[in-house]
Amino acid sequence: MTIKVVAKHYVKPEKIEDYIGLSKELVKETLKEEGCIEYGLYQDLKNPLILTMIEEWEDNNSLGRHFNSEHFKEIVPLMANLCEKETEINVYNKIV
Amino acid sequence: MTIKVVAKHYVKPEKIEDYIGLSKELVKETLKEEGCIEYGLYQDLKNPLILTMIEEWEDNNSLGRHFNSEHFKEIVPLMANLCEKETEINVYNKIV
Repeated sequence: MTIKVVAKHYVKPEKIEDYIGLSKELVKETLKEEGCIEYGLYQDLKNPLILTMIEEWEDNNSLGRHFNSEHFKEIVPLMANLCEKETEINVYNKIV
Repeated sequence: MTIKVVAKHYVKPEKIEDYIGLSKELVKETLKEEGCIEYGLYQDLKNPLILTMIEEWEDNNSLGRHFNSEHFKEIVPLMANLCEKETEINVYNKIV
């Protein structure tokens, strides 16, 4: 069963460009990972400060490897510094 | 440009089964709609009361037709009655 992840970030207004820049590198490297089905950054149509990574992984192991990858450990903390408040992360299983 | 929708519902504990039952009908009919790329119900691994519809549409028009469809107008209000609090809906454009 695949795993879907929705990671909703609230980015500081003055840091949107920097945030998108960093995420381009993260997305590029992550899409090369084994077990990565989907990994993209989305911007809320009503509130451009909400930037959400929507991901799909083959299984828990591939998601675990992602968290331990060099690019994740290097880039994600930098992105977190650009955010207004804590990220809302939901990890899901598909049921219907 | 496609449109991604994440609609996060907080369902009453005693209404989970009813909620999933209703969503099966909604998903079945919605997947037949023109412009519907993805439409599925996901359950949070840590909090089973969080049931989220993750959707992708070809464009704004197809999403608009969805909101006006018979099955949406019939089923979605019934699902809303089974929820603890307001649904969090984000409509997104992909940027990376």
